[in-house]
Amino acid sequence: MRHATFAALVLALITHAGAQAQPRSVVLIIGDGFDDQHVTMGRNYLAGQSGALLLDQLPVRGAVQVETVDADGRPIYVADSANTATSLATGAITQISRIGKNGNDESVPTVLEAAADAGYKTGIVSTASVTDASPAAFAAHVTIRACENPVTIRGGVKYGVTFAGCPEDLVENGGAGSIAEQLAVSPVDVILGGGMEHFVAQHETQPTAQTLAERVGVTLLSQREQLAEPHSGRVIGLFSEDTMPVKWQGTDGRTAETMERSWLNRVHQMIGSVTQPEVVKCGANPDFAAMPSLEAMTRYAVDHLSRDNDKGFFLTIESASIDKRAHERDPCGSIGEIAQLESALGVVMEYAEDHPETLIIVTADHAQAAQIVPDPTLYKSLPIPVFSPGKVARVVTPEGGVMRINYATNNIASEEHTGANVPLFANSEGAEALEPFMRQREIYHAMMRYLEL
Amino acid sequence: MRHATFAALVLALITHAGAQAQPRSVVLIIGDGFDDQHVTMGRNYLAGQSGALLLDQLPVRGAVQVETVDADGRPIYVADSANTATSLATGAITQISRIGKNGNDESVPTVLEAAADAGYKTGIVSTASVTDASPAAFAAHVTIRACENPVTIRGGVKYGVTFAGCPEDLVENGGAGSIAEQLAVSPVDVILGGGMEHFVAQHETQPTAQTLAERVGVTLLSQREQLAEPHSGRVIGLFSEDTMPVKWQGTDGRTAETMERSWLNRVHQMIGSVTQPEVVKCGANPDFAAMPSLEAMTRYAVDHLSRDNDKGFFLTIESASIDKRAHERDPCGSIGEIAQLESALGVVMEYAEDHPETLIIVTADHAQAAQIVPDPTLYKSLPIPVFSPGKVARVVTPEGGVMRINYATNNIASEEHTGANVPLFANSEGAEALEPFMRQREIYHAMMRYLEL
Repeated sequence: MRHATFAALVLALITHAGAQAQPRSVVLIIGDGFDDQHVTMGRNYLAGQSGALLLDQLPVRGAVQVETVDADGRPIYVADSANTATSLATGAITQISRIGKNGNDESVPTVLEAAADAGYKTGIVSTASVTDASPAAFAAHVTIRACENPVTIRGGVKYGVTFAGCPEDLVENGGAGSIAEQLAVSPVDVILGGGMEHFVAQHETQPTAQTLAERVGVTLLSQREQLAEPHSGRVIGLFSEDTMPVKWQGTDGRTAETMERSWLNRVHQMIGSVTQPEVVKCGANPDFAAMPSLEAMTRYAVDHLSRDNDKGFFLTIESASIDKRAHERDPCGSIGEIAQLESALGVVMEYAEDHPETLIIVTADHAQAAQIVPDPTLYKSLPIPVFSPGKVARVVTPEGGVMRINYATNNIASEEHTGANVPLFANSEGAEALEPFMRQREIYHAMMRYLEL
Repeated sequence: MRHATFAALVLALITHAGAQAQPRSVVLIIGDGFDDQHVTMGRNYLAGQSGALLLDQLPVRGAVQVETVDADGRPIYVADSANTATSLATGAITQISRIGKNGNDESVPTVLEAAADAGYKTGIVSTASVTDASPAAFAAHVTIRACENPVTIRGGVKYGVTFAGCPEDLVENGGAGSIAEQLAVSPVDVILGGGMEHFVAQHETQPTAQTLAERVGVTLLSQREQLAEPHSGRVIGLFSEDTMPVKWQGTDGRTAETMERSWLNRVHQMIGSVTQPEVVKCGANPDFAAMPSLEAMTRYAVDHLSRDNDKGFFLTIESASIDKRAHERDPCGSIGEIAQLESALGVVMEYAEDHPETLIIVTADHAQAAQIVPDPTLYKSLPIPVFSPGKVARVVTPEGGVMRINYATNNIASEEHTGANVPLFANSEGAEALEPFMRQREIYHAMMRYLEL
């Protein structure tokens, strides 16, 4: 027994000594809109009802409460990607649409910026435009998320909504400029995703974000083949104009559809007949062919950040279109994006195998509209038509089931977010670093502590 | 160091010796329909957006996949309370509506029955009729959940749907009889909830379930005051005819409502105006006044099961009306029922403080329709009316927010279930006994292992 204890002590000393030389890193993977309905959609489709995602095999799991306030600091119960990414990135509770700014519209430092200041390498990878809310909140600070480039920062229209721009963030007013301008000159070592249009957008004689990046020696990539070999120094890769096309789509590009209601059913919904949409199968989206996968971008980023780096890194990876395709009522689009998230997770787990001091966190920013509903209805024995008042897609799964997805939060072309707490997953490093129930701002503090910042 | 090791050894021996005398118990709390949307509704209302439920303070948390098959054994993606409670109770994957029977309609033993056989005391507590799916699946075996009493087992109408009954379960056909008949003569030491109508339902000259219970010496309770003092032997308490009235309701009993649409908006939904429902406040439901609370029933059950019992017990507690009120689009009803679940959890946590070998698990059977949606819409700047195609309730929270709940899975009087994986919570005993990701059938195996069955 004395011998065993001595051996344990020696082992502890070796482990501790080893730790000094180990890089220490955090990888935060954000599935945008990746709530439990989407996690289950992904599992049912990709692994089968009784299967398990790679995510499901992670040893640490919990739930994260989303917090949002209005202009008066009062709680509101449904968030957007801007305020939630800001909470994750900075620890602040803030208003919808804020990027790297707290509820009083003050810029607050991000975990990425703190890591860069402390000598860690840093990276951002997203399948959205890199100027979109979730990636932007880690390295930029603007009052309204749509202030993505030197043109839109002066106001415009985003998602069909007119906005005033961010006058306080204009360079000529002493601000840091639009998101693209800020990213161009940020300390971030590698930024990969979509959003070329925001880097070439030009306002009068002001330099574009691309020009700003070139001036400080950033290597700019735009073709996926360029990820095949390493580059030195700062790298920004922009592989599409805005959001990257997604991997999958439904048969003939079909998304959720309204029921076909007979004339009699339109007279009164309890009579006549209602025809549910035909099933859809998920298949390749041809527009994705020219894109690098999230896996390829992640592999490049991890290689770039870990090369000749004893200190470690902070990397955030966003699988953006779980949310974006849910807004568009496109379950195949969302599921293909979950497949991308799984592959990216595989890459970072592989890295963590050889570098045990790597904290991998997977979470979502907010919940979304999609719901798995019964196919057919639970009330199939009723002698009346039973149907969703919204739109549904009936997705054939590889195991031969039909997964019916309901989208019914509003009447316009884009669904609402929803307010459920979101899932939390982590590798074994999370057992100490995280709690089973956290608020998004507490994830920030946990990452800061892990990196000893 | 040698001394410290010796002390640790002595401590281990003491702990082990102590364990022999300790009762070992499992308490499984099922929040019916208690998915992450409802958990968050409960948190936002009962603890505030930045607060924490008692549940949120439990040290073990995870997610549970729901599995359901159709008559041909193919996966289907949305469950009911019968097949899911059967999975939790027996480890079987089965069809919708089955109670204690597997996918081939064979009766399978339950964790409660195995515990009773091994000398543990056993209990069932529910705010539904004790013959309803979730409580029934732990101590009864019928093919169709509506076979609750000697009349309905011969067929009838439940939830507006005609069903054939369970001829194979009829006593005269060699079966075990209806759920009420089976519960009456079951080994369960304490059964508390609603459902008196099923115990007095009489078919011709056949004895009622109440008569069967009396014959075997069960003490029958029907008034909440009777819970004030202990009883010996088997106890069945039935405090309402069917489901117990819930604790809370919305202002004037209001539930979710459709939008009020102007004449112009009915011509085309992109014009005219839409008026959202007035807010509701949650208040006491007068019908609840005569009911024992779930807390009181739980306290009675725990006292009954732990009295003069060195072996331990298995107790399942259902907070049934989270689901039942969600079907009815009544968020205040669901939230009041979550408050009841929290209080019941408090009682068993108090017991576990003095009896450390008590595994407390809280989970749900399936997800539900309710969604927290933005109030106002995320698209409030659009110059068109934006509104839910379903029904919404706008609940004023104690912290002064407005939580808007959307119910939009169908057009009839009762919402559909949904298919997301459900939350899992446990006390520290769950750290060893449970995994972060489980299937419902695996919860059964974990409980069996914990009780060494």
